[in-house]
Amino acid sequence: MATIRDVAQLAEVSVATVSRVMNNNGYVNNETRERVLRAIKELDYHPNVLARGLNKKRTKTLGLLLPDITNPFFPQLARAVEDVAQEFGYSLVLCNSDDQPEKELHYIKILEQKYIDGVLVVSSSFSREDLHERIPVVVFDRIGAEDIPAVCVKNRSGARLAVNHLFEIGCKRIGHLRGPFDASTADERYRGYIDAVQTQPWFSDNYVEVANFDMELAKTAVLRLLQRQPDIDGIFAGNDLMAVGALKALLHAGYRVPEDIALIGFDGIPLTETVVPEISTIVQPIYEMGELATRLLLQLIEQKPVLEQIYELDVQLLQRTSTRKK
Amino acid sequence: MATIRDVAQLAEVSVATVSRVMNNNGYVNNETRERVLRAIKELDYHPNVLARGLNKKRTKTLGLLLPDITNPFFPQLARAVEDVAQEFGYSLVLCNSDDQPEKELHYIKILEQKYIDGVLVVSSSFSREDLHERIPVVVFDRIGAEDIPAVCVKNRSGARLAVNHLFEIGCKRIGHLRGPFDASTADERYRGYIDAVQTQPWFSDNYVEVANFDMELAKTAVLRLLQRQPDIDGIFAGNDLMAVGALKALLHAGYRVPEDIALIGFDGIPLTETVVPEISTIVQPIYEMGELATRLLLQLIEQKPVLEQIYELDVQLLQRTSTRKK
Repeated sequence: MATIRDVAQLAEVSVATVSRVMNNNGYVNNETRERVLRAIKELDYHPNVLARGLNKKRTKTLGLLLPDITNPFFPQLARAVEDVAQEFGYSLVLCNSDDQPEKELHYIKILEQKYIDGVLVVSSSFSREDLHERIPVVVFDRIGAEDIPAVCVKNRSGARLAVNHLFEIGCKRIGHLRGPFDASTADERYRGYIDAVQTQPWFSDNYVEVANFDMELAKTAVLRLLQRQPDIDGIFAGNDLMAVGALKALLHAGYRVPEDIALIGFDGIPLTETVVPEISTIVQPIYEMGELATRLLLQLIEQKPVLEQIYELDVQLLQRTSTRKK
Repeated sequence: MATIRDVAQLAEVSVATVSRVMNNNGYVNNETRERVLRAIKELDYHPNVLARGLNKKRTKTLGLLLPDITNPFFPQLARAVEDVAQEFGYSLVLCNSDDQPEKELHYIKILEQKYIDGVLVVSSSFSREDLHERIPVVVFDRIGAEDIPAVCVKNRSGARLAVNHLFEIGCKRIGHLRGPFDASTADERYRGYIDAVQTQPWFSDNYVEVANFDMELAKTAVLRLLQRQPDIDGIFAGNDLMAVGALKALLHAGYRVPEDIALIGFDGIPLTETVVPEISTIVQPIYEMGELATRLLLQLIEQKPVLEQIYELDVQLLQRTSTRKK
């Protein structure tokens, strides 16, 4: 039976490099990675057999570390993760971090102490350094240089899709409610907005307000935006919660949606469908993201190589009443 | 140091009876229970010391078995449970049963195999027989003769509160959308509705439609109800999801809410606040229920006696635009 040494020899790399490829940590350039993967395949090398010694510590349990399960984006994600975990005989431990780095570190420590087999992390601040053990990790929405596999959606092109849709239905001046500065998703969506409006003669920074992905903040932010730029006839909210907040404030202030101001969000959470008028949105495949991330994590746990560092899923435009053609 | 035998002798009962009181399982009449508790106190008996042998199997982990985390009622409950669990150094395993008895049994088996210390169950069908081990359990919303502590709200009086509120704002004929026949919460709320309307000369069964706690079903059910009884000017929906569905169908069919038909739900989920008009509701203290149930479970795990079998929490009327005075 082939050993890791055989693989290293055939691929003309060190054992450490083979290990890095298999565990998906540490930098390995693409050409080397492919050579190692080819050697693994050619020799029919099964790292699982070697890893059997580690199995004693297996608990068949995954951790899901997210900011807050009551944020409407997360229940569907948690459901997907638990579904896949259960399918493969794993249990799921749920942890709410409130996006606080200290709480995240505390949970990670607990999960490591309990020999949790792997962790899925939704966080804007998590990094490899937060781990004491070499516990397998997959992150959501964090595209970084770090060697942790990440699952996210095409936020930038999704945002362009939203803004161009507003142009197509006849909007002339489009404002943007953006999320917090420390969230990469908010940045990417802001960039997508800029991509779509930067060549417009009217465009300036005055068309953007920050509302931190928060429904309540969006209510005041949207009114500030319109006070400053009463010419706005379309708004792209960087997430659905802000879109719902904006809708409520707009209706309350006497604007008609979409007649006076068209509105589109981002995420595809169920809330957008329960308001009147229903809000158009860029739908993330939330369930699929949870499914994919869990499958990747299970692959890492079984010491199978993960081929990509970043998995960017497609988004879809869902047109509803709030962007009915003018 | 006092032993269980000393307690039994002082209380003039068998050791088995003391054990039943301490573990809160098996029937013990109230007088006997109190005699045992007095003896425990008098002798300063600490079952924990004796139970130390069992501690080896402790994993400091709780299970939360609920139908589906994506149902908007449950994220807040899960959050409360996890908050309390974390406070006491416990991790929380999340399980989605889809209200399917086979899935529940499967999860219970897994949780027992993993030496989970205790389980919180939200289920309409769960019973003590589903447990192989004598694992501590607390249930939500299940008021039964069984010897499992239950946490719920005053569903029946809450429903009366809702219906009487509709009368107070001027409604003359009140219809009811009820939940499924196999859910005790739906039954209790239906009974509360009946309590409030049964003496009315107009009342008949024609004023009730079943919509199984489901938003989509409520859309058609509310229109059937109005077709049959066009005199209805107020509707009590047995939960908020049905109230939201009813609101959408009513607005779509051209009714004004509350001018033509006033509407009130039950639960207090965030959805009722994001629709326009905002929906009045009977607020359950969801977070407090989760907190209380988790504290009870931890008490059982620590082999401290739990004094009540059923903890019924109060509900509150939250008046919003959908029941503005006529």
